[in-house]
Amino acid sequence: MPIIRQYDQYRPEMKNNRHSLNLNIRGISESPTLTINELSKKLQKSGKTVYRLGLGQSPFPVPDAVVNELKHHAHEKDYLPVKGLDALRQAVAYFHREKDQVDIKAKNVLIGPGSKEFLFLLMLVYYGEVLLPTPCWVSYAPQAKIIGRNIKLIHTSFETNWRLTPQQLSDFLAAEKDQYKPRLLVLNYPSNPDGGTYVTEDLKKIARIARKYEMIILSDEIYGQLHFKGEHVSIARFYPEGTIISSGLSKWCGAGGWRLGTFAFPAKFDWLMNSMAAVASETYTSVSAPIQYAAVKAFRGGTSIERYLMHVRRILEHLGEKSTRILNLGGIRVHPPDGAFYLFLDFNSRAAKLQKRGIQDSSTLCEKLLLETGVAILPGEAFQRPAEELTARLAFVNFDGAKALAMSEAIPPGEALPKNFGEKHCPEVLHAMQKIADWANT
Amino acid sequence: MPIIRQYDQYRPEMKNNRHSLNLNIRGISESPTLTINELSKKLQKSGKTVYRLGLGQSPFPVPDAVVNELKHHAHEKDYLPVKGLDALRQAVAYFHREKDQVDIKAKNVLIGPGSKEFLFLLMLVYYGEVLLPTPCWVSYAPQAKIIGRNIKLIHTSFETNWRLTPQQLSDFLAAEKDQYKPRLLVLNYPSNPDGGTYVTEDLKKIARIARKYEMIILSDEIYGQLHFKGEHVSIARFYPEGTIISSGLSKWCGAGGWRLGTFAFPAKFDWLMNSMAAVASETYTSVSAPIQYAAVKAFRGGTSIERYLMHVRRILEHLGEKSTRILNLGGIRVHPPDGAFYLFLDFNSRAAKLQKRGIQDSSTLCEKLLLETGVAILPGEAFQRPAEELTARLAFVNFDGAKALAMSEAIPPGEALPKNFGEKHCPEVLHAMQKIADWANT
Repeated sequence: MPIIRQYDQYRPEMKNNRHSLNLNIRGISESPTLTINELSKKLQKSGKTVYRLGLGQSPFPVPDAVVNELKHHAHEKDYLPVKGLDALRQAVAYFHREKDQVDIKAKNVLIGPGSKEFLFLLMLVYYGEVLLPTPCWVSYAPQAKIIGRNIKLIHTSFETNWRLTPQQLSDFLAAEKDQYKPRLLVLNYPSNPDGGTYVTEDLKKIARIARKYEMIILSDEIYGQLHFKGEHVSIARFYPEGTIISSGLSKWCGAGGWRLGTFAFPAKFDWLMNSMAAVASETYTSVSAPIQYAAVKAFRGGTSIERYLMHVRRILEHLGEKSTRILNLGGIRVHPPDGAFYLFLDFNSRAAKLQKRGIQDSSTLCEKLLLETGVAILPGEAFQRPAEELTARLAFVNFDGAKALAMSEAIPPGEALPKNFGEKHCPEVLHAMQKIADWANT
Repeated sequence: MPIIRQYDQYRPEMKNNRHSLNLNIRGISESPTLTINELSKKLQKSGKTVYRLGLGQSPFPVPDAVVNELKHHAHEKDYLPVKGLDALRQAVAYFHREKDQVDIKAKNVLIGPGSKEFLFLLMLVYYGEVLLPTPCWVSYAPQAKIIGRNIKLIHTSFETNWRLTPQQLSDFLAAEKDQYKPRLLVLNYPSNPDGGTYVTEDLKKIARIARKYEMIILSDEIYGQLHFKGEHVSIARFYPEGTIISSGLSKWCGAGGWRLGTFAFPAKFDWLMNSMAAVASETYTSVSAPIQYAAVKAFRGGTSIERYLMHVRRILEHLGEKSTRILNLGGIRVHPPDGAFYLFLDFNSRAAKLQKRGIQDSSTLCEKLLLETGVAILPGEAFQRPAEELTARLAFVNFDGAKALAMSEAIPPGEALPKNFGEKHCPEVLHAMQKIADWANT
């Protein structure tokens, strides 16, 4: 077959070429939070002191009661149902009813290997446009890109506490040619990357708009139980027929590495939930069995879990306040957080100074900060902010969570922590803040 | 805005409609193996005796040494690297070097939540046509459909032991207009659904063709360690530069529900492996940490794991032979298996009789068999065979694996099991075979 041979001569050697890559995936690199984590490890290995404020991982251990359940179920080896272990789906439904006062039933719950996987499956299955208020979590936009979904960003501002306002959402829709296009609005509160949350009045107004325009709301409430006052309010209370609640073990239970996430659907969303389960059955199949058995304990809650949560919240609130104060004193704009363990820093008041040092975008800002001070944080650009805006996210998690927990346990519940608790038990966090403040002013 | 209101009147109520589903996903239901499993459970609950030969799950417990490692690492909570725990990647590379004599390095290994997830990611990332010799595993084709990849089936036959012959592959390519189209050839051996494997000479010839036409081979060797003689040969030995080896804990280690799979790539496939890792970092993130730590033990192997494997193989070989004999006596064509725990049954010699009973396709065959005898097996159609062909897969796994293992342990290694071992310790398996044989002849 001479034609084939001739063709062959002009072909680049296949084994090394990238021409057979899906175009949606080219240029996607590993998620920036994971990348900065691995880079920080390398710097540490080379002997440099690194303040790892990049990766958003809970510093606290998994509660003993939950670890013990995992040991107890270590022999479980059967494939569990695609939608999840029945007892766990029931526990998660109970969790949402108790904690969020939303009427979720077990049959409307899915268990997956992390809520991130579910967000991806949702975007894959739902043929709609994705609306992202920014700053937003690093993975929403790359996920949509991989699948080939259209994204619309709505930029919020420091002045509105980095929250989407009902007016902004109305204005956005009014300017659209097709107001009724299938849309998925992604809200995340308490928020990664800024620790802020919504006031209830705004949730009600956003719910009203979503109802009117028949948008699906993906309400990412993975930090709900880390609201410092324990007063998290879900938008599902005001838009139960159109809100999917995303949650999981990773943040409030300190079990990020265990990989277990949950989605709770409106009762009439079987068409969407079952399609996600069908794709799940052709991909990850089910979540690791021993992990699911252990998670039942976590979602059922009880005294020991509540006590754990109380300490975790108290410590995080204390550190959030202290960190905010240090940064504000350094002229960096940042709001004190309502929950979670993030701060979103706005260096724009220092723009003139920074520009003289060659810093004109958030990526350069974070790179120089890491090289000059050893403090690793993530550029605002990774959270879909304009590249030239000098913003960045930090996670104040670089402390020994087990030790801090033990110290908090010695202080009666309900009391505030002593003023010097952070300096005493989480000194690296506050050193890092001071380094950032000093660096911004040199 | 009167225009919007008018539009609204003609719109169906969104919450219940399926118009916003990705078209690739409509009509995909839960994987048939999982569906039959859940249906069988229901029949059992209603009091019927069900012989569950549908789901391909190992009946054996996870080796104690591996379960103990999971207990020992139950507290591990950190997010592990996307590509996997370093120690585990090393153990998997060592496993392939030792067992398969293929030069795999740790840096070319990925760890994921099941090899099924990896197959999906591979098809998502690689923009090529998927070649499937049939009968093939149930999930390959639906995965390609979800992603929107083109599939080409190559039907093999009972006469060639359900194996793709080198000649068939050559003929297929000769008939194609573009021989050099990017292609992914999926081979699975020992095979699900038929327990057969390739002779080495054919692997060499297929390797030669794949090299010539620059095809990627996805060599699904998840049952490699369940070759009854321990003589599994990987095609990667003959086509190392273009073969990805898929493996995992699910089958040989009895840990299907744990969800851990592995891919081992050719050294120059960084472009593909890194793209898969990038998508992984935006989806499942990493495999559950405690499970990864425990898996190190399994892949490192050692005396106790080898002993476990010896017993598992001996029991499965015994049952495979006995089952084949009963079915053959009943006039059902089936080959004795080389490995794994499947038989692919050909009822076509009974076609005239079956047709009189209203059975003209494999789905009706399996449905009637289940209803009339309580034996649950899967239709050939689910394995991409023509619907009207009277074939079906069974998994001879409906016995107490822990008990059978204990009984085998009392018999010296190297010896054959007593002739009545199956009747004594796995009677349900042989009852089911007799029921199938009798049913086909009524």
